[in-house]
Amino acid sequence: MSDSRPIAVDAMGGDHAPHEIVAGAVHAVRERGLSVVLVGAPRVLYEALADHDATKEVPIVRAEEALAMDEGALASLRRPRSSIAIACHLVRRGDAAAVVSAGSTAGIVATGRLRLKGQQGVLRPAIAVAFPTLPTPTVLLDAGANAEVKPEMLVQFAQLGATYAELAHGIHEPRVGLLTIGSEAEKGDKLVRRAHELLQGTTGLNFVGNVEGHDLLTGKVDVITTDGFTGNVALKTVEGAVRYAFAELREAVEESRLARLGALMQRSRIRDLRRRLDPEAYGGAVLLGLNGTVVIAHGSSRAQGISAACRLAADIAAAGVVSTIGDRMAATGRSHRLW
Amino acid sequence: MSDSRPIAVDAMGGDHAPHEIVAGAVHAVRERGLSVVLVGAPRVLYEALADHDATKEVPIVRAEEALAMDEGALASLRRPRSSIAIACHLVRRGDAAAVVSAGSTAGIVATGRLRLKGQQGVLRPAIAVAFPTLPTPTVLLDAGANAEVKPEMLVQFAQLGATYAELAHGIHEPRVGLLTIGSEAEKGDKLVRRAHELLQGTTGLNFVGNVEGHDLLTGKVDVITTDGFTGNVALKTVEGAVRYAFAELREAVEESRLARLGALMQRSRIRDLRRRLDPEAYGGAVLLGLNGTVVIAHGSSRAQGISAACRLAADIAAAGVVSTIGDRMAATGRSHRLW
Repeated sequence: MSDSRPIAVDAMGGDHAPHEIVAGAVHAVRERGLSVVLVGAPRVLYEALADHDATKEVPIVRAEEALAMDEGALASLRRPRSSIAIACHLVRRGDAAAVVSAGSTAGIVATGRLRLKGQQGVLRPAIAVAFPTLPTPTVLLDAGANAEVKPEMLVQFAQLGATYAELAHGIHEPRVGLLTIGSEAEKGDKLVRRAHELLQGTTGLNFVGNVEGHDLLTGKVDVITTDGFTGNVALKTVEGAVRYAFAELREAVEESRLARLGALMQRSRIRDLRRRLDPEAYGGAVLLGLNGTVVIAHGSSRAQGISAACRLAADIAAAGVVSTIGDRMAATGRSHRLW
Repeated sequence: MSDSRPIAVDAMGGDHAPHEIVAGAVHAVRERGLSVVLVGAPRVLYEALADHDATKEVPIVRAEEALAMDEGALASLRRPRSSIAIACHLVRRGDAAAVVSAGSTAGIVATGRLRLKGQQGVLRPAIAVAFPTLPTPTVLLDAGANAEVKPEMLVQFAQLGATYAELAHGIHEPRVGLLTIGSEAEKGDKLVRRAHELLQGTTGLNFVGNVEGHDLLTGKVDVITTDGFTGNVALKTVEGAVRYAFAELREAVEESRLARLGALMQRSRIRDLRRRLDPEAYGGAVLLGLNGTVVIAHGSSRAQGISAACRLAADIAAAGVVSTIGDRMAATGRSHRLW
C-alpha cells in the first residue's frame, strides 16, 4: 500500500520554524525518499530552500498566515488561511496524504477538527504517542486533546489506539490497559471505574485491566487509554524524568576523572540510547479519529524531528489507519460487534 | 527541637514484612541513633529481633492483626487492632512521636484518618512526596490519598506542602506550582482553572503559576499541588521512567565489551546516583493534615528504606510540622490572613 501523494508540512509551526522545518523537509525528501510540500510564506520558504539548493525538490503551497505557538483553539477558528489550515485543506481535497506540524498542539487539534472533521461515529479525536518499549512500542492516548472526557470516550480511545497499534506496529490483538492508580478494578475515580466496566463489556477489544504509571515503559500492554489531562502529564513526566536521569548520569560521570575514560568509550552507545528515548526520534504524536492523517511533531523539533515525523506520517497513511478506523466505526454503528 | 518519644513502626505492613521491617528498625536504632518501637505479632517480632541480637534494643508493642497489602480503606475500619491502627493509637496517646508503615497506602490513609483524625480546618489529608531535585527537594502532593478533589482542596494541599517544604527542607517562602497541561492560566480542566484563580487570590502563598509534567524534576518550583489521581500517576511514572532509563543504560553498556570496562569504573558513581533517585532512599511519603506524623514507606521497602523512613519521621516530628500546620489552620480560621 503506497501513496504517491506528498506529505503537507506546516512550515510555519514550531519553536524553530521555518528554518529547521524546511531543513527537515529537505532531509525527508533526500534521505528518506519521501514526497513533501511545504505550506507557508512563499518568499521565506523559497529562501530557506535555496540555502539547501532545494528549490526544485520541494514545492511550496502558499499560506498567508500562521498560528503562533501560544495561540490555541480559538485563534485557529479565525485563521482559515493559516499554514496548518491550508495543510489540512490539502489533505481534505486529496492533494496530500497527511499533515505534519510542530505548531501549538491546541491549534493543530482545533484546526484539524474544523478542517478535516471527526470520522463518522468518533466522539472525539485523540492524540496517540508511542513509547519506545521493546520489542514493540506502547501506544498511549489521549495525550492531550481532551482534558475532560466521559467513560465512553476512554473506550473509544482504546479502540482507536488498538487499530493504530495493529496497523502501524503490526501488533496482533493489542493488549489494552486503562491508566489508573491501582491495579484492582475498584481503584481510581468514578470516570475510570465506569470506563473499566465498559471496557470489560466491549467485544473485539483485548482489554487486560488497569495499569499504573510505572507500567508505561515496561511493555506490559500495547495500548494505554486515559483522559487527555492525565495522559499529557504522564507523557511530559516521562520526557522530564528521562532527561533528568541522563543529566544526572552525565554529571556523575564528569565528576570522576577515571569515569571520563569510560564515558568516552560509551559515547556512541549512549547516544544511540538517547535517540531511542528522544521524542524527536520517534517522530511525534498522531491525531487519531479525523478524516485524514495528522502528525503532531514536538514543538521543539529540529530538522531530524521533522524528518522523522514525515516518515511516520507517510507510514500511517500507507498503512490505511484512517480508512480502517472508518470501516470499523461504520461496522460498530451497524452491529456493535466488530470492535 | 528534639523529641525523645520513639517512632512507632508498623512491623506487619509491606511486601517484605516483618523481617525487612525489623531489620530496618534495628538499623535505625543502631546506625541513626533513633528510638523505635515495633508494632505487630510479638512472637514473630521477638524472633526476628533475636536474629539481630536486638531483643533488648527495640521494644515490641502487641497488635493481634495486620492489614494485608491488598486490603484497602474498608478493611481498616474493621480492624481496630491492626498493627497500623495500634501504631496510630500510640501517637494519639502521646506515646510515640510518629508512625512509619510500608503497608497498603489506602489502608494507612484510612486508618490514619480514623485513628488520628484530620487537623481542625483540614478538608482532606494529602500524601506528600519529595523528589530529589537540587539544591532542595521538590514536594508533590497529593500523591494518591484523594482521587477526586475540589478546587479548594488543591489550595489547601499547596498550603500543607508549603509548610512542609519550609520546616522539613528549610525553604523560605516556597514557590508553589499547579500541575496542569499548559503553562497559561486558561489551560487544563475546570478543576485546575478554578484552582488557579483561588491560588492567585490566596495571601501568604508564593504561587508562581502552572507547571507541567516535565517540571517535576527541574526544581522550577518547591511545591507542586495536584489531585491524588494525577499525582499518583505522575509519581509512579517518574519511578518507572528512571528505572527504565537505568535498565536501558545498563543494557547499552553490557552490549559492548569495551564499554564494560567503563561500567566497572563507574560502578560506585552510578550506584550513588541510583540511590538518590531511588524512592527507598529518600524515605517515602508523608501524610499531611492529620493530628500526628505518618510516614508511608514504599510497599517494596527493605531494611534501608524503613530505616530512611524512620529518619524522615523523626525529622518531621522534630520540626513541628503538625503543630505549625495546626497553628496556621487556626489562624486562617480567625483571620484568613496568615497563609
